Amino acid sequence: MTINVVIAGPRGRMGTEAVKMVTNEPSFNLVACIDRKNDGEKMREYPNLSQQNIPVFESPEECFHTKKADVFIDLTVPEACFDHATLAIQNNIRTVIGTSGLTASQIEELTILSNNNQTGCIIAPNFAIGAVLMMQFSKMAAKYFPDVEIIEKHHDQKLDAPSGTAVKTVELIKETRTAKSQGRPDEEETMPGARGAEEEGIHVHSVRLPGHVAHQEVIFGSSGQTLTIKHDSIDRQSFMSGVKFAVEKVMDMNKLVYGLENILDI
Amino acid sequence: MTINVVIAGPRGRMGTEAVKMVTNEPSFNLVACIDRKNDGEKMREYPNLSQQNIPVFESPEECFHTKKADVFIDLTVPEACFDHATLAIQNNIRTVIGTSGLTASQIEELTILSNNNQTGCIIAPNFAIGAVLMMQFSKMAAKYFPDVEIIEKHHDQKLDAPSGTAVKTVELIKETRTAKSQGRPDEEETMPGARGAEEEGIHVHSVRLPGHVAHQEVIFGSSGQTLTIKHDSIDRQSFMSGVKFAVEKVMDMNKLVYGLENILDI
Amino acid sequence: MTINVVIAGPRGRMGTEAVKMVTNEPSFNLVACIDRKNDGEKMREYPNLSQQNIPVFESPEECFHTKKADVFIDLTVPEACFDHATLAIQNNIRTVIGTSGLTASQIEELTILSNNNQTGCIIAPNFAIGAVLMMQFSKMAAKYFPDVEIIEKHHDQKLDAPSGTAVKTVELIKETRTAKSQGRPDEEETMPGARGAEEEGIHVHSVRLPGHVAHQEVIFGSSGQTLTIKHDSIDRQSFMSGVKFAVEKVMDMNKLVYGLENILDI
Amino acid sequence: MTINVVIAGPRGRMGTEAVKMVTNEPSFNLVACIDRKNDGEKMREYPNLSQQNIPVFESPEECFHTKKADVFIDLTVPEACFDHATLAIQNNIRTVIGTSGLTASQIEELTILSNNNQTGCIIAPNFAIGAVLMMQFSKMAAKYFPDVEIIEKHHDQKLDAPSGTAVKTVELIKETRTAKSQGRPDEEETMPGARGAEEEGIHVHSVRLPGHVAHQEVIFGSSGQTLTIKHDSIDRQSFMSGVKFAVEKVMDMNKLVYGLENILDI
Repeated sequence: MTINVVIAGPRGRMGTEAVKMVTNEPSFNLVACIDRKNDGEKMREYPNLSQQNIPVFESPEECFHTKKADVFIDLTVPEACFDHATLAIQNNIRTVIGTSGLTASQIEELTILSNNNQTGCIIAPNFAIGAVLMMQFSKMAAKYFPDVEIIEKHHDQKLDAPSGTAVKTVELIKETRTAKSQGRPDEEETMPGARGAEEEGIHVHSVRLPGHVAHQEVIFGSSGQTLTIKHDSIDRQSFMSGVKFAVEKVMDMNKLVYGLENILDI
Repeated sequence: MTINVVIAGPRGRMGTEAVKMVTNEPSFNLVACIDRKNDGEKMREYPNLSQQNIPVFESPEECFHTKKADVFIDLTVPEACFDHATLAIQNNIRTVIGTSGLTASQIEELTILSNNNQTGCIIAPNFAIGAVLMMQFSKMAAKYFPDVEIIEKHHDQKLDAPSGTAVKTVELIKETRTAKSQGRPDEEETMPGARGAEEEGIHVHSVRLPGHVAHQEVIFGSSGQTLTIKHDSIDRQSFMSGVKFAVEKVMDMNKLVYGLENILDI
Repeated sequence: MTINVVIAGPRGRMGTEAVKMVTNEPSFNLVACIDRKNDGEKMREYPNLSQQNIPVFESPEECFHTKKADVFIDLTVPEACFDHATLAIQNNIRTVIGTSGLTASQIEELTILSNNNQTGCIIAPNFAIGAVLMMQFSKMAAKYFPDVEIIEKHHDQKLDAPSGTAVKTVELIKETRTAKSQGRPDEEETMPGARGAEEEGIHVHSVRLPGHVAHQEVIFGSSGQTLTIKHDSIDRQSFMSGVKFAVEKVMDMNKLVYGLENILDI
Repeated sequence: MTINVVIAGPRGRMGTEAVKMVTNEPSFNLVACIDRKNDGEKMREYPNLSQQNIPVFESPEECFHTKKADVFIDLTVPEACFDHATLAIQNNIRTVIGTSGLTASQIEELTILSNNNQTGCIIAPNFAIGAVLMMQFSKMAAKYFPDVEIIEKHHDQKLDAPSGTAVKTVELIKETRTAKSQGRPDEEETMPGARGAEEEGIHVHSVRLPGHVAHQEVIFGSSGQTLTIKHDSIDRQSFMSGVKFAVEKVMDMNKLVYGLENILDI
């Protein structure tokens, strides 16, 4: 069975990759795109997206009424995304949202709509399955290894430290880990900051170097052994296996699920 | 509540560590040991095990009748282990078995006895929780990452390659992974063996160097990302957190469970 | 002082990166390109190379006579490269060659010409300084650590195993290492190939997975310790710091040097 | 040729290992030990050092006059070490010093004595060849890779952070690296300490976990590539290959050299 797909945001960084993925996947069929400023053009006129004779709509209403879609993928901005997704679900089109920044109340509205309409919807702030598994495994391991430190490495143009993924990992670990002060109580930093950032005894270290992209390792230690869970992402393509998985999964869903981890069977 | 423990095999490599662990753990109480050749001695007479005034029995019957034990830990050899465990369970003493090499029919007999008697029993061929988690996480990840290779590293006196843990990991991965031939079908080894061992497309590489102890990493790859699960063991102490966990867990069990992974809550 | 540069092969994969590097580097000035099929065009007409008003010559003679160059960079194919380089050196233009595949006699001819003419020339089959350092450090370490294994990891579309860098590393290590059979003489492969490829006792393991680009680690072991030298390359940009270094270095040279390692001061 | 060796400090942690190494090495011959409190005993009476019928002297004078030694190894404490070494060199016995904490003026006195007497002497604060190579390679690489960060990992009972080796590595790197502020000037720590300690733009991160012993990796980054130099030490045995090397090397020396790096041929 072929799944007919509509993508909103085809010019964006994620959108460009998603168009490629959907058109390359034999069981998917890209039937249209929604783009707030290229109404009536064809995808083949987009730079980097040659040879696709796919229509572009400025109006989501027109798109959803003209083209029969099984799944709608939104990779735009929060405001547009909320309107698109509402409309898609009202039209019984299953929806996959990769746009981040929806408010709690927007998510709640979409949840009610999706569940009432029995139309599947997935909201995933992170589509990299590897990163999601790293976080879930860390949460599981922390139950048995309360001693844990995180090292995340990114390119040297990243503004904030630690990364959002590291912060999220700390939160997940705290859900299962028995609170514990690690290391020696009297340990001394002869160079301030050497022991990194710290939250409930969990230390986090941020490396910033050219030649890195996005990497994280979570190290658990106990007497005589360490267990390390590491994710290395070097390309935005790493998100696409997650988008593909979500599109396939949403076909069998009749309610809204938040977070890729909640549709993974682990 | 203090758990009264009997250990069989106190002179062995695992047994020596287990005696230390049990005597150091405030909630455990070592009441006796079973040793086929030091009947009537005290543990303090054993080299490396000073200061413990604990009796040693040659006869398990005498031991179980003389001393009140909550949990019996067997770290001996298969023949002795089967007899010890049978007797312990018949005496309603919960049993933790770290001895490897029991036959399938011995395991079946112990299972029937344990279940009929409603006396908990755990058989764990591998007590390193980190190694067990590595294998379980690998099994989970393989569902979403069919491309996987294993690198295991051991000291250069190890006889066989790959390690038992690597072979077991391949088996577990095969349970969830869609069979797949990895790499290019026309790939060429200009030096024979470069691509390692292979089973259903899963490649396994064994490194043997002085300075290593026991290490394994399982690497999963997909477009733009890799997920790595790594376990490093440098000391036999790494098994003791698993033994401790099993002793605590078996207190609440009324049947036999095979494999530490089946009593971990992940 | 600004260094005036001519690049041959501006449309190739290395050439495209070199044009970007030279035009972005404040102390370099790209004065012309040589391209066998775009005579008279400007670089700005090349896809991915906007805004550079730099002339393109089909004839190297015309280029070298028309434009005053300090350094000529060749990133083409062996036949063209030899003719270009001969002409450049005859015109006293220092030359940096990244093209691989020159024959031994071509290299010898260029050496004689360069030395007689006292015009510096660098031939570098590998411009990734990190990879060159990894190999040189490995050669140094092998003198003190005869036990060594190599793990190289590449994307799963690579045809040959092991990689050329791994083969080259083995050769360099053999120059300083005392020949030694590693591991146990009676070691057994229960899965054939597990111990990898082997040359004079040095074992080499090739991993092929999507999500990898080009990675190698050289692991040295001795009692109680390991020393690991690792290079990770994720982008062709990794070659450009080496090209930049060679352009600066060749300005002070009056003979031909083969191999980036021979102009590094380590 | 057999090298006759005297060891001072045979009961210490390094000394115990050194006695084992010297007695196991076919080309070495342990002729005596110096120990401030076991005059007249034999080494076989020491715990953990069975079967060696080697005399123990309290007086170094008596030892050096009674027994013909080629090399004297001191693994004691600074005060004793200085007296022992002075006496050994005066008696034309080549000397290898692993004791740390000699003052600058003591080192100067020994240097003058050794050079005047043309009797080789090596003072090595760190005998782990792998750690010494890691530091030297880092110093070399920093010339070409000014962007560098250090991650060191130790067991969780270590008091100070960063480790002495990390501090020493930073110093060595500063000798060759062009000073540079790394990362974004406006980078923000949302959790204080995340970016680690910092010295002239070099960031240092200290991980403390059970299951670790002594590990350090130095990561160099440039566009598209990283070079990593890593040392893992899991046992005090790691020092012994350096002691052995120093004993052999000092046989051909007629002056004092400070630091193992200065007798390595790299």
